[in-house]
This record gives sequence, structure tokens and C-alpha cells, in this order.
Amino acid sequence: MYVLGLDIGGTSSRALLVDASGRRIGYGKAAGGNPAAHGTETAAANIRQALEPALRGVDPAEVAGAVIGMAGIGALDRPVFDRMWASAGLRCAPVVTGDLGIAFAAGTAEPRGTVLIAGTGAIAARIEGGQPTVISDGLGWLLGDQGSGFWLGREAARAAVHSLGRGESDGLLTRLVAGHVRDSRAGDVPDAGGGAAGAPTGAEQGSGAGWPPVDGRAEAIRIVVHLQGRSPLELARLAPLVSRAAAEGDPDALKIVSMAAGLLCATVAEVRAEGESTPIVLAGSVLTSQGPVYAAVRDGLGAPTVLAGDAAGAAAWLAAREAFGLDDEEARRLHRRILREE
Amino acid sequence: MYVLGLDIGGTSSRALLVDASGRRIGYGKAAGGNPAAHGTETAAANIRQALEPALRGVDPAEVAGAVIGMAGIGALDRPVFDRMWASAGLRCAPVVTGDLGIAFAAGTAEPRGTVLIAGTGAIAARIEGGQPTVISDGLGWLLGDQGSGFWLGREAARAAVHSLGRGESDGLLTRLVAGHVRDSRAGDVPDAGGGAAGAPTGAEQGSGAGWPPVDGRAEAIRIVVHLQGRSPLELARLAPLVSRAAAEGDPDALKIVSMAAGLLCATVAEVRAEGESTPIVLAGSVLTSQGPVYAAVRDGLGAPTVLAGDAAGAAAWLAAREAFGLDDEEARRLHRRILREE
Repeated sequence: MYVLGLDIGGTSSRALLVDASGRRIGYGKAAGGNPAAHGTETAAANIRQALEPALRGVDPAEVAGAVIGMAGIGALDRPVFDRMWASAGLRCAPVVTGDLGIAFAAGTAEPRGTVLIAGTGAIAARIEGGQPTVISDGLGWLLGDQGSGFWLGREAARAAVHSLGRGESDGLLTRLVAGHVRDSRAGDVPDAGGGAAGAPTGAEQGSGAGWPPVDGRAEAIRIVVHLQGRSPLELARLAPLVSRAAAEGDPDALKIVSMAAGLLCATVAEVRAEGESTPIVLAGSVLTSQGPVYAAVRDGLGAPTVLAGDAAGAAAWLAAREAFGLDDEEARRLHRRILREE
Repeated sequence: MYVLGLDIGGTSSRALLVDASGRRIGYGKAAGGNPAAHGTETAAANIRQALEPALRGVDPAEVAGAVIGMAGIGALDRPVFDRMWASAGLRCAPVVTGDLGIAFAAGTAEPRGTVLIAGTGAIAARIEGGQPTVISDGLGWLLGDQGSGFWLGREAARAAVHSLGRGESDGLLTRLVAGHVRDSRAGDVPDAGGGAAGAPTGAEQGSGAGWPPVDGRAEAIRIVVHLQGRSPLELARLAPLVSRAAAEGDPDALKIVSMAAGLLCATVAEVRAEGESTPIVLAGSVLTSQGPVYAAVRDGLGAPTVLAGDAAGAAAWLAAREAFGLDDEEARRLHRRILREE
């Protein structure tokens, strides 16, 4: 008998099949399956594509359980999803859940503690009995996600255009951001100018006629117009530039790292009692990349932290615990096998 | 003989015809004419519509000069604009310029000083010889416009969803924002969920299955999803709620007002030498509404400020000074007549 664990995000869908001993039997990866971002039809098709290699050579009727950690779960059209599931030959009823409990389980076999996810977005939760009971942030790029990859990228762009606007183009972070945007613009087809949402409010003024153009400001305006014409979430791509510049001591980057870590620690503090000794699991690319933001968060939390492992593995572990009726000791052993020994 | 002054923004196009003595002869208003937001064809058609009532009963050949202050001037297709201009029977060559010099002239007849515009966006400039020579901010809603109407609205929404997420729904600003969004959602047709840019990164988690729903958080998520699905610039509509709540002593609103004023003063400081005694003109709805942000900026600048009057009047004044060859004394007298006595 087998169990399936699925990790479904905006950019990828991953499926892992393990047996009762925790051995990896099959694995598949496909495009994103977040139903809020893609719609359930596309999401289900992509999830199906991830399931195929994971189930290859196995009778799907022998899959005894499945747990699916899914971003955007609120938008899931369950009948559409269930039809896809049945069409893959799967007979077990899958548990579809949010990604907070899964991310926590990807770091620890304990039932209680705190999880902080900082990827494109940022969210923290208090976990009890494996489930989130109190949540902070996760409020989206426009109003929240403080200290996230989006936030880091936006602050990097903000620092760069501010410096360029003042005629200061020497800083490493400024040069990295300007270079990234130049490369990105070079790949664009020329466009006729954005729509209402893309049109900068007063930004185009610097490139207009009527006063002496300033090179730095003109470059700042070009960056603003370019970035406002794209999905704001693309700013998250600038986040690694902050780490790179901070590692070389760039003062703007160091300030952004320190602010991001402070915001992430504050997000954790909203769901965690002071002096609590339960584990804190750190997940999401901003943290698992183990760059300067991770180091500052780890030091700032003042409590032991553990990095999240593979979320598909954690989902498979949760499925196994349920399907095979493991006791706590067996569950801990299986957790180590699935999440620590690969 | 007459002169025309035009004030062309994203939401309205206004045209004012005055005679050599500064008397208002005609006035017209139409939809926005910002070519970056609407394209030059639409912009030109709207400007033409504003010109019509302004020129009614007058021979357009008798218009000796025109100044046009235009947002989004960088995107202007000049031949398209010039055809529209000629088709209105106008023979004079119009001076098309950005809105910084015009906003400055709407507050003072002096040639040197500082202008700060805080409307949907925020920008400041050092003015010399009537033209901006150094500019700060104006870097758009995504990366700049610090302390602007957009910024105020975003901070209001941010404070509200943060409070709601913590289960605190009593604050005045929180109630005003939640009420505004409820009214706005009630007017919406139900939609099938936003696209990639609109999809909150982790925001939908709170409304998903898998953990106990919390009313405040569910409302916060609804607000986030609603606002992320619309043009970010619509957040500027929340700015007046900050003034209202601040006037009644709401601590969140007072904090936002104080931060906005600090940011706007910092934007001014970037283009102005300390101890300078030239006039500072304050323009844009955030300031001309004379609410708490205006009061805090005025007190924070530590220099005499003057509120900008009608920008179309200022454009007409600039046109008159040029067309009629006025000396400084005559120009000052005409400025008082056009901008102060209506």
C-alpha cells in the first residue's frame, strides 16, 4: 500500500508517492495548480500531469491515502477536482488543505508550534494539533506580505529609483536592479504605454519636455514605467539581488534585510506567546535559501528554529500517519525517514 | 485679444479663456486628457470637448497665446494633438508643458521657489525661471508617491486589514475602510476570481477549509481580495477617510497623517536648500483640501507656504504674460486678478 503527498503552488505542482516504510516510489512535477491563480480546470489538468509519473507502474487503487497542500484553496471547484482525481484511477478520498499545516509538518513531527512562510508572500501561524489556529499577515502584496520576496524586491526597486533620481548610480544594489530591469526591458516587445493601472501618476514627468532632462532621473522613470506595466509580483524576482548586495556590504541592501527580518519576526510575534519553547518552522524561498534574511530572522526570533523540508514529503507523511494508523513513535520515525534522509 | 489656459489631468481636462485684463471669457470642462493614460487620440478628443464651450462666441483666430499644463506629456503624439488644435480654428502655437511649473504659478507670480503636489501621486520640484530644475519623487504608486492620496489610502487599508486580522474591529478608521469596501463590493458584479496579478499570494488561506474561520480575518481577506482585484490607484479614494478619522482622534489615522506629512516634507527637503526663503506652493487635493495632512505639512516645512489656486488660470496667466509682453509689475497685477479674485 502507498500514500500520496501533493504540494500545489502557483508556479509548480508536485506529487510524491511513498510506501508504508517511507520509501520514495514515484515523483512528478508539473506547472502550477493554484485554483485562485489559474482556475480549477487548468489547475486540475496540471495536478493530473504531476500525478502521472508519480503513479507510473503502480495500481492507483493501492493508494491508501492522500494529503494535498494547496495555495488558493478557497477558489477550488471541488467537483471538477474530484473528477480529475477519479480519472487518475485513485479511489482514496484526498484531504485537501491549506499550506500552513503542511509547511509546519515539513519541519517537525510535533503537533504544536509556529510556522513562518516567506516566499513571494509572507504568513505566520500558530499550529495546534497540526492545524493553524491563529494566523498573521498573508494579506497579499498590496497591503501585507511584509518582509516577503515581493516586499524585498519592491524595497530594492524603491531604493534604486530613489538613488538614481538623486543622481546616485554607484551603489551595488542600484546597479543590480538597474541591470536586471535593462535585461528585462531588452526582452520586451515595445509597447504603446500601459493602461490606467499601469500609468504612473506623476512619473512620466521627468522624461517630458519643458525642463532639463537629468540622466539618473530619466533612468529611474524608465524603471518605474517598466515595473508598473508588469505584474507587481514580478518584483519578487529582485529579492535575490538584495541578498547578493547585502553579502557584499551594500548599505541599502543591509537596511532592507534588517527591516525585512524585523517585519517577519513581528509577524511571528503576533501568533506566538513570549518565552514559548515549541518549534518554529521556517519555510519559503526567502528563508530556505539561507541567505542574510534567514540569518537575521533566526537570530531575531530568540527561539530554536528548524528549516522546512520538502512539502510534498510532509503531505505524504501526514497521509501515511492517517492511512496506516501510526502511533506517535512510528510517526516520528517515518517523519525522519521521509523528510530528513533524502 | 484673448489667451487660453488648459489644465489637462488624468480625470479632467479644463480650458479657460481670459482677455488681456484677466477677465474670464469662457470656460470648458471634459473628461481626462492625459495621453499616457488614455492615448493621444482620446486625450485630444477630450481636450477638444473642453475647448468648445471655452471658445463659444469668440473668433478662435483672436486667441493670441495658449499654455497647456499636461500630465503624461511624455506620451503625447504631437502631430495628432496639433491637428486637433488646428481643427478648433486656433492659429496660435500652444506651449505644452508639464504640470509642475503650472502648479507653482497657480500659487505665486514669483519665478523661483518650490512646489509640492500631493494628489493621487506626490512630487516636488525646485522652480527657477518658472521651470522645474530639480525633481523629487513622482515615482509612481508602486515605488514612490510617498505621502500621496494613494499612499494615504493604502496605509488606511493596511491598518484596517491588520486590525481586522487581529480581531480588532472597533477603530473608526477600520470601520470607515470596511464600510467603504462593503459599499464598493455591493456595487460589483460577482467575478470569477482575479488573474495572476490580482491573486493574493497567501491571502486566500484564511477563507479556506482546514482551520477554524475567524470573522475578523475573513473580513480582512475579503477586503484584500477586493482591493487586489481593482486598479491600485482606486486606493486613493480612501484618503479622505484618513482625514475624517484623524479629525476625530483615531490613533491609526493620526499616525498615518503624521507619517504622510513627514514623507512629503522629506520630498520637499530634497529639492530645497535649508533656510531658503522663496515661496513653497502646495498643490493637489491632499493639500488643497486643507485637512490634517495639509496642516501637518505646513507646520513641518518651517517656511511660508501658499496654496495653489486654479491651474487653468495659472496656465492662462503664463500665456498672457508671454502673448501680451507684460512687465513684472503688470504680470503680478494680472496674476492677482486671475488667481486671487475669483
